[in-house]
Amino acid sequence: MTATPVEVTATDGAARAGTVHTARGSYRIPTFMPVGTRGAVKALDSADLEALGAEVVLANTYHLMLRPGADVVAGLGGLHRFTGWTGHTLTDSGGFQVHSLSPVVDDDGVLFTSVYDGATVRLTPESAVETQGLLGADIQMVLDVCATLPATPEVLRSAVERTADWAARARAHHRRWEARPEGQALFGIVQGGTDPALRVESARRTVDLDFDGYAIGGLSVGEPRPAMLASLAVTVPELPSDRPRYLMGVGDPVGLVEAIALGVDQFDCVAPTRGGRHGSVLTATGRLSLRNAVHARDDAPLDATCACTTCARWSRGYLRHLLMVNEPTAWRLLSIHNLAFTIGLVDRARGAIERGELDTLRREVAATWGS
Amino acid sequence: MTATPVEVTATDGAARAGTVHTARGSYRIPTFMPVGTRGAVKALDSADLEALGAEVVLANTYHLMLRPGADVVAGLGGLHRFTGWTGHTLTDSGGFQVHSLSPVVDDDGVLFTSVYDGATVRLTPESAVETQGLLGADIQMVLDVCATLPATPEVLRSAVERTADWAARARAHHRRWEARPEGQALFGIVQGGTDPALRVESARRTVDLDFDGYAIGGLSVGEPRPAMLASLAVTVPELPSDRPRYLMGVGDPVGLVEAIALGVDQFDCVAPTRGGRHGSVLTATGRLSLRNAVHARDDAPLDATCACTTCARWSRGYLRHLLMVNEPTAWRLLSIHNLAFTIGLVDRARGAIERGELDTLRREVAATWGS
Repeated sequence: MTATPVEVTATDGAARAGTVHTARGSYRIPTFMPVGTRGAVKALDSADLEALGAEVVLANTYHLMLRPGADVVAGLGGLHRFTGWTGHTLTDSGGFQVHSLSPVVDDDGVLFTSVYDGATVRLTPESAVETQGLLGADIQMVLDVCATLPATPEVLRSAVERTADWAARARAHHRRWEARPEGQALFGIVQGGTDPALRVESARRTVDLDFDGYAIGGLSVGEPRPAMLASLAVTVPELPSDRPRYLMGVGDPVGLVEAIALGVDQFDCVAPTRGGRHGSVLTATGRLSLRNAVHARDDAPLDATCACTTCARWSRGYLRHLLMVNEPTAWRLLSIHNLAFTIGLVDRARGAIERGELDTLRREVAATWGS
Repeated sequence: MTATPVEVTATDGAARAGTVHTARGSYRIPTFMPVGTRGAVKALDSADLEALGAEVVLANTYHLMLRPGADVVAGLGGLHRFTGWTGHTLTDSGGFQVHSLSPVVDDDGVLFTSVYDGATVRLTPESAVETQGLLGADIQMVLDVCATLPATPEVLRSAVERTADWAARARAHHRRWEARPEGQALFGIVQGGTDPALRVESARRTVDLDFDGYAIGGLSVGEPRPAMLASLAVTVPELPSDRPRYLMGVGDPVGLVEAIALGVDQFDCVAPTRGGRHGSVLTATGRLSLRNAVHARDDAPLDATCACTTCARWSRGYLRHLLMVNEPTAWRLLSIHNLAFTIGLVDRARGAIERGELDTLRREVAATWGS
C-alpha cells in the first residue's frame, strides 16, 4: 500500500478525475497547487488559500533549508504547523534550482550558492530526502537534474542518467531512513527533454523504482508548446494509472487543459501569482494588462464572471491605482484573483471530465488563449 | 444641526465615551483610525479593516490628488466605493505634508513637489476643500500649517496666523461651494506648538469659525510627551463638548490613554502599521522586537492574550521568518496584529470610561510602556 493511491472516478479520453488518498486524508484531481516558495504564497496567507479552495500547497526545499533552516521548521512543528495550513503540502527538492541557479553538479550531488548570503550549500539525493523529512510535507520530491531547453543530446542524456541514479539513491534512502515522517510520500521525476526515446527510458527507469507518484520535470523550460505536449503524450502512458502524475511548472490555461487531456493530475506554477503582482490578469475573455492606462477610470471588476473576493468588491481602477503606486495590497488582491481563476479552471476541467465534455472546454480555452 | 454632533454616554474625569452621529451613520468614541494613505492601509484591504473593527479610516489628500488624481477617485464613485469601505472615512488635507515635505508656503497656500514625478502642485485652503470634496470622505480637514518642533516663537506665531486665516477661507468656501458632497463634515485644526497661550488663542479662533469637529495638530512632531500633554490640557477645554476632538498623529499606548483621559475622542497614526512592517510588535507585556534572533525558534503567538487572526494561527518563529526574507505576507499579518492591539486598547479605554475605571487602565499602560 503506497501513501498516495489514486481513485479514478471518471475518465474522458486519457483525462481522469478522482481522488488521491494520502496519510493525511485526500485531495481531488486534477488539482492546481499554489507555490509558497518560502513558506507563504507571496502576499497571501493560509487562510486565503483555504478560501480559494486550494488543496495542495508547494514549498521550496532550497529556500527553506537556507532560511529559516529545515531544523527550524522542524522545531516549529513542521511545514503544516509552521505555515498554519491544514491541507496538503509538497516540497520541491531543489532540482528546479539546478535549472535556474546553475550550480556545480557532479555525480554525488549539487553545490549551490546561497541567494541570501553567498554561502555554499551541498544537496545530495540523500540529504534532500532528510531535509524534506525535516520540513515534513505530505509529499517530497527526489533531487533531479533539470536541463534548460534547448539542450544537446549529451546534456539531456547526462540529466537522465544522473536523475535515474539519484532517484535510486533517494528511494533507497527514504525507505531505510528511520527518522522519515510517517506516511510521507516520495515522488520520482521523469526527465528527457523533448526526446521521445529518452522520455520513455526515463519514465521506465523511474517507474521501476516504485515511487508513490510521478512528476514530469524538465518541461515548460523554453521549448515550444507542441514539443511539450508531444513529450507528455509519450511519457504519461508509461506511468502507472494508480499513482498521481504531476507536471511541474505549468499553470497557463492552455497548458493546464491540454496536459489534463493527456492524463496529468496535478500542476504547480508561480505564473498566476507572479503575473498578478505585475498586473497581468487572467479573465474569462483572456489576459488583461492592468497597467494599461485605459483601466485608470475603469469601474468594472477584473472579470465580471468571477466569483472571487477581489472581483466582488474592487474595481480595475482601484486595483490599477494600488498597483501603480506599489501598494502590497495590490499584489495580494491580484494574486487572489489569478489563483481563483486558475483553480477555477482546473475545477471546470474536473467537472468536464465527469461529464465527458473536456473537448468542449479545450476548444473554449484555445479560442480565448490561443493554442 | 452639524454633520457630526457628539452624543456623550459616559464620562470619567475629562474623558468621555459615546457616539458621533454623521450623515453616513455613526461611529463610537474614543476611536483609533487606521491610516490608508494611498487608499489602502499598507498590505491590508477593506475587509481586513472590517474584521478588525475599525470604524473610521483615513486617506491622504496630497497622495490621492497626485495618484490617481481626485477626479479619478470621484469618477470611480468616491473614496468609499473606490476602496470598498462602507465605514467612515476622513481625508487629511495635506497639512501634515507641510511639516514632512518642506514645501514653499505663502499666504495664499502651499507649493508642493510631487514625490511621484517631481511636478509642482499647488494647494490652497479653497482647492483643498474642493479636492477633498471630490474624494468624498465623510470628514474633510482644513489645510493648515504644521510647524516642526522645536520652533521659534515667530514660526509658531506664523503657523497659527496662517492656519487661522486659511481655516476662515476653508470654512467660507466649504459653505458656499455648491458641489460639496451632501453631509460632508469639515474639521478645523488647532495649532500653536507647545506654547499654552498660542494654543488657547488658536483654539478660540478656530472654534469661532464653527467647525463640525476640531483637530489638535502640530503635536507628536518632536516635542517631549509632557509638553504634548500640557498643550492638550490647555486646548481641549477650549473646544465645544458637542463636537468631536481629534488628536492628529498619535497612536502609541501611553499617548492614547493619556490623551483620552484629557478628553480627546479620535486618533490616527501610522506607527502601529509601519512598526509592524519592521517587526516592532505591540503586546500586553510591551514591545517585542521580532527581528531579534531569540524569536527564530519561538513557537508562541505574538501575544498570548490577543484574539486577532494572526495570533490565532501563526507563531513568532513563522512571522519572523517571513519578515526576515521580506515576504509581504509578514507586513500584512504584523499590521493586523498591531492594529488589533491598538484598536483593542482604545476599546478597553472606552469600556473603562463607562465603568469609571480609566485611571486603572492608565496606571496599567504606564507600568507596561513607561510614561
